[in-house]
Amino acid sequence: MSLLDETIARIVGGDPRASAAAAAALDAKTKPVGSLGRFEELACRIASIRGSVPDHAPAPAIVVAAADHGVARAGVSAYPPEVTAQMLANFASGGAAVAVLAREAGARLVVVDAGVHRDRGRVDGIVDATVDGLRGTDDLSVRPAMSRSTATGAIGHGIGIARHLADEGLELIAVGEMGIGNTTAASAMTAALTGAAVEDVTGPGTGIDADGLARKVEIVRQALDLHGLGIGRRHRVEVVDVLARVGGLEIAFLVGVILGAAARRVPVVLDGFITGVAALVAARLAPRAVDATIAATRSPEPGHDVVLEALGLRPILDLDLRLGEGSGAALALPIVRAAVTILTDMATFSSAGVSERSDDAVPMTSA
Amino acid sequence: MSLLDETIARIVGGDPRASAAAAAALDAKTKPVGSLGRFEELACRIASIRGSVPDHAPAPAIVVAAADHGVARAGVSAYPPEVTAQMLANFASGGAAVAVLAREAGARLVVVDAGVHRDRGRVDGIVDATVDGLRGTDDLSVRPAMSRSTATGAIGHGIGIARHLADEGLELIAVGEMGIGNTTAASAMTAALTGAAVEDVTGPGTGIDADGLARKVEIVRQALDLHGLGIGRRHRVEVVDVLARVGGLEIAFLVGVILGAAARRVPVVLDGFITGVAALVAARLAPRAVDATIAATRSPEPGHDVVLEALGLRPILDLDLRLGEGSGAALALPIVRAAVTILTDMATFSSAGVSERSDDAVPMTSA
Repeated sequence: MSLLDETIARIVGGDPRASAAAAAALDAKTKPVGSLGRFEELACRIASIRGSVPDHAPAPAIVVAAADHGVARAGVSAYPPEVTAQMLANFASGGAAVAVLAREAGARLVVVDAGVHRDRGRVDGIVDATVDGLRGTDDLSVRPAMSRSTATGAIGHGIGIARHLADEGLELIAVGEMGIGNTTAASAMTAALTGAAVEDVTGPGTGIDADGLARKVEIVRQALDLHGLGIGRRHRVEVVDVLARVGGLEIAFLVGVILGAAARRVPVVLDGFITGVAALVAARLAPRAVDATIAATRSPEPGHDVVLEALGLRPILDLDLRLGEGSGAALALPIVRAAVTILTDMATFSSAGVSERSDDAVPMTSA
Repeated sequence: MSLLDETIARIVGGDPRASAAAAAALDAKTKPVGSLGRFEELACRIASIRGSVPDHAPAPAIVVAAADHGVARAGVSAYPPEVTAQMLANFASGGAAVAVLAREAGARLVVVDAGVHRDRGRVDGIVDATVDGLRGTDDLSVRPAMSRSTATGAIGHGIGIARHLADEGLELIAVGEMGIGNTTAASAMTAALTGAAVEDVTGPGTGIDADGLARKVEIVRQALDLHGLGIGRRHRVEVVDVLARVGGLEIAFLVGVILGAAARRVPVVLDGFITGVAALVAARLAPRAVDATIAATRSPEPGHDVVLEALGLRPILDLDLRLGEGSGAALALPIVRAAVTILTDMATFSSAGVSERSDDAVPMTSA
């Protein structure tokens, strides 16, 4: 059995009994039942993913994976392709947004080179997860972005990192990405996987103008036609083929992280559009992998709503974040952690000597 | 000049130059301009309130004020009135939600008795901010909740606490409240201050049923009629009168905290409906006090949207939190803190050697 098949076979999904036990524990706490709303649902979801009610706050890691995209040379981004390598160094040296937010959240930051055009070995603190030394994908608008075996290799690297982090005691994994051109890949994948119209899932990314957006839509359409992924064909194409033909190396790597974490019952906090697309691939490979995911933030990128709908997820935050990198996931980490702490640290009605609610709120004197 | 008048005179409102300086600093950071969305607006708002771009993360406090309400005896709540005193003790002993979340956020928790029926002196760590030893308000549905001088006294205590915290170096104050019956007071105040219909601003609070809600609406209507605060009269009634007639001691105290913080340029993080009403009173007394506030969370209590609209605020979180206590404000504190850290800790394009965007995203090869 391949690493991928073995991992998929281990994904058992959420545990409704653990979720119910967490809900019962929350109902005994000194607060009106359900008065912490979606924050309580989050605590129950963590219990469901873990398979038991947590007894301590989870130790978090943020995995940010970067890769270059051949399609970036087609002018689909407001930034030049060399920014991917520069930002990878900026993650590792601690100056990027996700590095700052990881420190704020007390999370270990794992910086991954999934295939970046750069001089290797010059920067410390970068995990090499390249496949066959590839430094980026081919231009998906003219040929497949990568081979199927490259895609499977990148997924395997991601599974490996997730296993390694779980072995080291990390209990919550946030994911992020960086790659000039990667919203183009994500838009193509979203259209191919969901059947949504290209113009409904393609947006300005880091900030191209109207002309740039029109060009990007055209490139995505062209790519889908070229690879036989257009409307009417999508159900006949296998999901790893979609990833290989119009995806990206960091996206493939993150598919592996999500599957690997789900197989180990480690909750995965998704960031925005790109990580959502990785989760969608994971979900098509192993439908119960979705149970292990938590959506951190709603991106203004139009494809993200389509992806969230397909995953059945509602994000914790809605702050118009469109940076990526895992910045939204990092911002949600304190909220996820706090949800568990409510479960572990709050007093119960009986422990605190607080009266419970009257069964029906009848007037104690005539009103 | 009275303490209140003196405080109001010191409230100068936000500083657009500081906000613009923060925005310029953010635009130089290694991220596409504006890509952190409302998170960047938050950083600019903090700069505006402080009057300068912050150079370190603010030290936070959470002030949670409790008081009893005479109207609670009319059966407007799902919980018996003695719960107010029990929860006050639960705040101080660290088992309540806000106490857990304050620890998570690294915030000092200041627990305030603004007028609770309890045996005084038995619990450590509670600040006595009672006025003339009052242990709760009168029933607002049959007589004024308190006198004007009591309301002014409670506001004065709040101003004093805010000054004290500012003197001690606290740079960010979150506010919360507890008081069985206080959503009834808040609904009456909202209707009186905004002219909104009673049924549009009265909700289930901690969880009364439909019959209880109908009774609560009737009690609020009755109170507004009794005190001459109904539709058509509202513009002729002075705001401190509204607070005295249908308000609460913890609400009056929090009006003072908000005014006192605004006068010292300390940002105030509002929680839900009740603290929003306190901010609305503060805003009617000193319109620029709103500049100093940040809305943490959107409450499902219907009056909260009316209050947010009147204040012109959009909350950071929307998680269906309706507990109060400052729990939503506490959850937003790490996000507020992180917004400042982005400003202070992130690398710039020049410091990190990252290429800036191309002026227009033209194809680098023919697409």
